[in-house]
Amino acid sequence: MWGRGAAPGEVGDEAMRAVDYQTDPSRYRHWRIEFDGEVAYLVMDVDQAGGMGDYELKLNSYDLGVDIELNDAVQRLRFEHPEVGCVVIKSGKDNVFCAGANIRMLAKATHQQKVNFCKFTNETRLAIEDASQNSGQAYLCAIRGNAAGGGYELALAAEHIMLVDDRRSAVALPETPLLAVLPGTGGLTRITDKRKVRRDRADVFCSTEEGIRGRKAVEWRLVDEVVPNSRWNETVAARAREFAARSDRPRQAKGVRLTPLARRIDGDRGDYSHVAFEIDRARGVALVTVRGPSQGVPDTLEAAHRRGADFWPLAVARELEDAILHLRTNEAAVGVVLFRTEGDAEAVLAHDDFLARADGDWLMREIRHYLKRVFKRIDVTAKSFIALIEPGSCFAGTLAELVFAADRALMLIGTREGDNRAPATVALGRANFGFYPMGNGLTRLETRFLGEPATLEALKGKLGEAIEGETAQALGLVTAAYEDFDWDDELRMLLEERTSFSPDALTGMEANLRFAGPETLETKIFGRLSAWQNWIFQRPNAVGDQGALKLYGSGVAPTFGRERV
Amino acid sequence: MWGRGAAPGEVGDEAMRAVDYQTDPSRYRHWRIEFDGEVAYLVMDVDQAGGMGDYELKLNSYDLGVDIELNDAVQRLRFEHPEVGCVVIKSGKDNVFCAGANIRMLAKATHQQKVNFCKFTNETRLAIEDASQNSGQAYLCAIRGNAAGGGYELALAAEHIMLVDDRRSAVALPETPLLAVLPGTGGLTRITDKRKVRRDRADVFCSTEEGIRGRKAVEWRLVDEVVPNSRWNETVAARAREFAARSDRPRQAKGVRLTPLARRIDGDRGDYSHVAFEIDRARGVALVTVRGPSQGVPDTLEAAHRRGADFWPLAVARELEDAILHLRTNEAAVGVVLFRTEGDAEAVLAHDDFLARADGDWLMREIRHYLKRVFKRIDVTAKSFIALIEPGSCFAGTLAELVFAADRALMLIGTREGDNRAPATVALGRANFGFYPMGNGLTRLETRFLGEPATLEALKGKLGEAIEGETAQALGLVTAAYEDFDWDDELRMLLEERTSFSPDALTGMEANLRFAGPETLETKIFGRLSAWQNWIFQRPNAVGDQGALKLYGSGVAPTFGRERV
Repeated sequence: MWGRGAAPGEVGDEAMRAVDYQTDPSRYRHWRIEFDGEVAYLVMDVDQAGGMGDYELKLNSYDLGVDIELNDAVQRLRFEHPEVGCVVIKSGKDNVFCAGANIRMLAKATHQQKVNFCKFTNETRLAIEDASQNSGQAYLCAIRGNAAGGGYELALAAEHIMLVDDRRSAVALPETPLLAVLPGTGGLTRITDKRKVRRDRADVFCSTEEGIRGRKAVEWRLVDEVVPNSRWNETVAARAREFAARSDRPRQAKGVRLTPLARRIDGDRGDYSHVAFEIDRARGVALVTVRGPSQGVPDTLEAAHRRGADFWPLAVARELEDAILHLRTNEAAVGVVLFRTEGDAEAVLAHDDFLARADGDWLMREIRHYLKRVFKRIDVTAKSFIALIEPGSCFAGTLAELVFAADRALMLIGTREGDNRAPATVALGRANFGFYPMGNGLTRLETRFLGEPATLEALKGKLGEAIEGETAQALGLVTAAYEDFDWDDELRMLLEERTSFSPDALTGMEANLRFAGPETLETKIFGRLSAWQNWIFQRPNAVGDQGALKLYGSGVAPTFGRERV
Repeated sequence: MWGRGAAPGEVGDEAMRAVDYQTDPSRYRHWRIEFDGEVAYLVMDVDQAGGMGDYELKLNSYDLGVDIELNDAVQRLRFEHPEVGCVVIKSGKDNVFCAGANIRMLAKATHQQKVNFCKFTNETRLAIEDASQNSGQAYLCAIRGNAAGGGYELALAAEHIMLVDDRRSAVALPETPLLAVLPGTGGLTRITDKRKVRRDRADVFCSTEEGIRGRKAVEWRLVDEVVPNSRWNETVAARAREFAARSDRPRQAKGVRLTPLARRIDGDRGDYSHVAFEIDRARGVALVTVRGPSQGVPDTLEAAHRRGADFWPLAVARELEDAILHLRTNEAAVGVVLFRTEGDAEAVLAHDDFLARADGDWLMREIRHYLKRVFKRIDVTAKSFIALIEPGSCFAGTLAELVFAADRALMLIGTREGDNRAPATVALGRANFGFYPMGNGLTRLETRFLGEPATLEALKGKLGEAIEGETAQALGLVTAAYEDFDWDDELRMLLEERTSFSPDALTGMEANLRFAGPETLETKIFGRLSAWQNWIFQRPNAVGDQGALKLYGSGVAPTFGRERV
């Protein structure tokens, strides 16, 4: 699967590398966006023949390709359409809303593909919620026809769910009865924690293949309202206008076009305008370099808007996101990612200050939330991240967040022989104290210093200071600081050690160590729900030859081992 | 494994059934308790030849049998020793504290066995914390020699960890580097969330096979103090006396002996004084009946103490716990447990009121916390629980908690033909509003009505009311209420449906639906940490023929698939 035109069944590395997260509406095969003033209709109309593999996307079922378009649409609506205050997700098909993730696709996918597919679709649904909550772009879901499994999970990401009352259309999470897996795209977590459905009703609902419709769906809080068929379109439109009317987005503003990325990915190397990566396949290590701003901060807010997709914080967010998604999906054998930066720390901090000053501006708000989401993608990526802080780097403010998102950070003390650049520094900026909360609701520094609130307080007094290696280590900002003559050996040993460990144990370890403190809907989805789903994705009852996923649609009933674990 | 004397390798049902959670100090092979006034020393001195299977318990490593004794000791110290205000866990071996779970045992265990082993050991460590936090019996861990893996995880359950500073003794979580699994007995969660170790240090620590010792272990908050070898015994004793001095336990009180259970388990049936179970193997369904008090409430607190282990709330807690553990461990093919009760609801409520009035009494406090822990064992048991509320039942107060711990509750409306007993009722008591918080810190009713706070408030006005079927359903206390002529069919269909689903999908579904609302250290351990560990316990890198668990100690290095998932 994945690579278009790949042979059926398990696919090799080449097809895997075909996954590209970049698209634009002119290339969509599965979605269209219809604009009606401040309301946008995001219409799901999946092209049955447009799957990434050898399966048919019947009944508005989806695969990764469909979700890549959805992610792109959600993103563009935020950046390119400041006038849109409400997005209505609806189906372009007459008889179905969405049948969820395509089963044949799941049956054929490797374990790694299933896990990454679910991770990305979860991120997309969280981005929908982020738009509703933080960008004044509320999502409303208008369900006509059945919304089953991932179809209903998509609806659950909306702020308001409308269901037509036509005695047929229902919402359902039939994964357990039908497929022996979980509603893993946030479904279980959102019914208990977002919609607060009573647990026994949730149990009944998740056991009921045909789902629940009409008034009962409202009573059980599965949807927010049911609407007679005769008044469907007008009610949906009216509700959308209501939501849009509450938006604080500037209807007269001009959007920023997300132009195609300046990108060249060629085997082991990837080059963007401000990001680059290089893969050392022998070791399974990728080096990601992020470059600071090549221009000074704009003189005015208008000038920043004019820079559009070239405005450094936005450009770097897009490029870093694409690189992370590429490595995550297409380079599974890369276990360690090294973060380096290059450039002027002052320029990074100046951009952060610009973002902070322009707090009321819709576009600057979007950029901050976007960077937040990119850093969160790192938090849930199953690779070890190590920040390398060396002379010439600019780990300041927004880019210092890479240090705190990393599992470890190594810093060079002093200068390098034969290198006349100043010693490496890290610098905290306003960005590190609230711009980019993690999924747990805390900043990375708050999470890092959960056990040392006094240190956190003290760090607030150091905004903008260029902190050198030994001090950074003493302050707890980096894991270790080494002098030049130790650096290479220490790094080599660390990489040798890290790449000798079981990739699975590292994934589980990191998933636990990265999220100290409170759990939220979001961390529950990536922690509890996804972990159980990944477990089930390994169990013969789901994926074995007699398992439900493999036999689905074959007419043969699965045979389950009856042992309860 | 498990069954003593079982043949090496995978074992069949017979050996599995041998696991018995009942023991007493006269039968301990691995622990001894030494008393020194208000301090008890819980000495781990594992009998190498005393494992439950074909492996040697070297270096104070443990298997389920060792942990069953520990659980028993923790329990008896609470009930039998009101004079003990501090328990010191230490090693009875000269050169090692504890090497953790026995690797050969893990390598030979089935997946179900590994998962249940970890679940029980996690429950035991949480019981240790519960004693420290709620019973005035603080645990202190005195580490001399290495505390590795599960050995250090045992220490992490204590309130205070002391480490000898002898240049050798270290604490370590070497699971990832050594075994390709996680420190799954709460280790990862407790270092981040209980001891709030900085994440990059946690990462270094969990990657360092040899562990960390001396001052650095204190600096990193891995232990609370290091003590020179020369002053070890006196410092440990002094610290223990300090902790004991803070205890509110009554030093002059007389403990209650936990006498052997009146129990007869015979194939498909189990009978206790107030609990019984019966297994329908064809369907994989167990019926558990809990009987209300056979005596009225005692006239005085002294009289309650005199009843001792026969006092109904204590007796029922012990018996229900044993039955649940038996079904969980020895009856894996039982997927559904039906809860019934028999007896006088008023008598149950009267006992609850007695417990509530005697709030300041140490024994009544112990009983409440014990019942709390028993209900929590149900919450984390991988079986579907269904409460059946029929005429003659006594689902009131403490026993109504079974209704709210169940995944579903069915209630009979009115009477049964040919049965002249009054219609079934449920009744809320004070016990349902605070005696038995779940792992998430909320009561089961609070969790149930997260989305309906007004309902919860209204229910507080109904204490002691006998609520019949239709009203109970309308109030949201039960899932469905049926009249007699529908009852059998509805139940039959429900059981047919439930037992047709994949046991794994049900386990994952229930693990997600049961824990709405806040996550705590405890829910993170059973949700996030255990789910990841269970996933890893399915991965070839750990359990495959070339996996680390299988090859450990063979001299052959494991071969890992390098893919990051």
